[in-house]
Amino acid sequence: MKKIAVLGAGSWGTALSMVLADNGFTVSLWSHRQEQADKILNEHTNQKYLPGVVLSDLVQGTGSLREALSQASAVLLVVPAKAMRDVLRQIRSIIEQPMLFIHGVKGIEPGSFKRMSEVIEEEVPASLRTAIVVLSGPSHAEEVALRHPTTVAVASSDFNAAQQAQDFFFNHYFRVYTNEDTVGVEIGGALKNIIALGAGLLDGLGYGDNAKAALITRGLAEISRLGTKMGAHPLTFIGLTGMGDLIVTCTSVHSRNWRAGNLLGKGEKLDSVLQQMGMVVEGVRTAEAAYALAKKMNIEMPITTAIYQVLFDGKHPKDAVDELMNRDKKDEIAPLSHSLAEKIAREQ
Amino acid sequence: MKKIAVLGAGSWGTALSMVLADNGFTVSLWSHRQEQADKILNEHTNQKYLPGVVLSDLVQGTGSLREALSQASAVLLVVPAKAMRDVLRQIRSIIEQPMLFIHGVKGIEPGSFKRMSEVIEEEVPASLRTAIVVLSGPSHAEEVALRHPTTVAVASSDFNAAQQAQDFFFNHYFRVYTNEDTVGVEIGGALKNIIALGAGLLDGLGYGDNAKAALITRGLAEISRLGTKMGAHPLTFIGLTGMGDLIVTCTSVHSRNWRAGNLLGKGEKLDSVLQQMGMVVEGVRTAEAAYALAKKMNIEMPITTAIYQVLFDGKHPKDAVDELMNRDKKDEIAPLSHSLAEKIAREQ
Repeated sequence: MKKIAVLGAGSWGTALSMVLADNGFTVSLWSHRQEQADKILNEHTNQKYLPGVVLSDLVQGTGSLREALSQASAVLLVVPAKAMRDVLRQIRSIIEQPMLFIHGVKGIEPGSFKRMSEVIEEEVPASLRTAIVVLSGPSHAEEVALRHPTTVAVASSDFNAAQQAQDFFFNHYFRVYTNEDTVGVEIGGALKNIIALGAGLLDGLGYGDNAKAALITRGLAEISRLGTKMGAHPLTFIGLTGMGDLIVTCTSVHSRNWRAGNLLGKGEKLDSVLQQMGMVVEGVRTAEAAYALAKKMNIEMPITTAIYQVLFDGKHPKDAVDELMNRDKKDEIAPLSHSLAEKIAREQ
Repeated sequence: MKKIAVLGAGSWGTALSMVLADNGFTVSLWSHRQEQADKILNEHTNQKYLPGVVLSDLVQGTGSLREALSQASAVLLVVPAKAMRDVLRQIRSIIEQPMLFIHGVKGIEPGSFKRMSEVIEEEVPASLRTAIVVLSGPSHAEEVALRHPTTVAVASSDFNAAQQAQDFFFNHYFRVYTNEDTVGVEIGGALKNIIALGAGLLDGLGYGDNAKAALITRGLAEISRLGTKMGAHPLTFIGLTGMGDLIVTCTSVHSRNWRAGNLLGKGEKLDSVLQQMGMVVEGVRTAEAAYALAKKMNIEMPITTAIYQVLFDGKHPKDAVDELMNRDKKDEIAPLSHSLAEKIAREQ
């Protein structure tokens, strides 16, 4: 029986471990907290992250990276974006033979603004990895654990590797699509959190479904503009990891980013909001990164700019919405259509 | 002061009349019920369709098509899709000089499966119209009436006409984008109702956000395939009238289509559902039309097919979902990317 190492025992890492176990794999699930690893191993639960769920015997908790990786044919990384580089530096000296690297992390590295697959490329010598695959999509971990129908995409520049990852995870409740566009899948997953913040803001202001649909649609349009400039395929943003994930994140009141935005929309200041949340709000960092990237690359991102100004320049959310609504009259798809035609022309 | 005739005093026709009045136009709002027209004229209310909303003095109700159209520089049609042809036949003998035809109807003609702008072209001689524009987007009428931020698109093969319509409606709470793709805007607005039915079905089955995001994303992918074959620009479906409208329709429990789907998901039969609803469920008719079109044009539309089978072949909704999840493994964007490259190549 094949073994896969899953590094990171949060709700998503644990849910993906269950999918792999359902598909007959032995899973070594690593947690940096020994106590949590022991509970997974001995009590088959991960009470903090997936309360009430009983884990398969095939999912074995461990606090040792060496034990997790030993004899594994693939490694699935599901650690926080900011911890990725450090974990990679720890494992590269442990890995015995080249293996498939899959990651399920939605975020970009703080400071460097690098995508997760770029960080893997930098930190893990090519001799130790067969390929790099990203797995992403609209997926609350809790629903996957209940085996409710879920779809995700796996992307890699190596199509065979993407198909291999598809085979690992595909089953009757977890439908996996391949995609060749790593850049687009990674950017969509990271930047959606800005728009989720914005959705919370609108709800906090008391606006309705029309405003939220506008935010999501036009937000995705500007993410596509940035992503395309960074080398992504524009159509990826219409898929599961773009539009699909955006819908789940923006319409769920469980999202941390939505909740932070909601408090901001009700008039609270960022410092106070972050203090109340008591945990990382990815969208705040990502807004800062995207704002910097848009400036550097000279790309129009009015929604990101407005959210940045609310977060960091003290702009009142209502004024930000008013300014967005009163920008010059625009055509809807001409700008994106143009960049798409350019991209396709380049490929042919 | 310019006058615009708005034909159809449902919630959407009335809300759009208020936008026009806010922009300084005189609006003659026609209802086929004299009593309703009188109440709009004398009491400035449309209690049945926009309860609690006070209409501007500039919105004048009338039961006479002749009075509505007299001296109007444009006509905005907001009647049910099945009534469109009949209304056009009534007005073509009344119109005195060529005018701009705008319509805000989301639906295709039953039986003929024709788009609304095709029906207008067929019934109104070219000498009586300067151009045809469709206005569509994610927009609950009730929110527009409250002047909450809303975005829509206006599409026409005549770009100047689209800009003219943009000028009519654009204001601080109603942001209007131009688009040159009439076909895509009309198809998106009509076919979204099938997916809304499906969203209700999933909720009725007790599935969660992951399943709904998958339905919306993959549903839009197949609508795009059909639409592109019919001549639409694929990128229109990522815009306000495609994805945007789909989000509003599928996440609002007020949608008639969602409610019908929800009852079906809970195990009720179509006859009983339609009886309980007591009114037209557009998605049911549209599913029939799209299923026929997909067969005729040889386009793969698995979600539409599944919904058709639940509606008309007595398939159990859970079995339909299981079959969708267990189809062959697929690539996410390759099929659409291919048709897009073809389209762009044709245009160049």
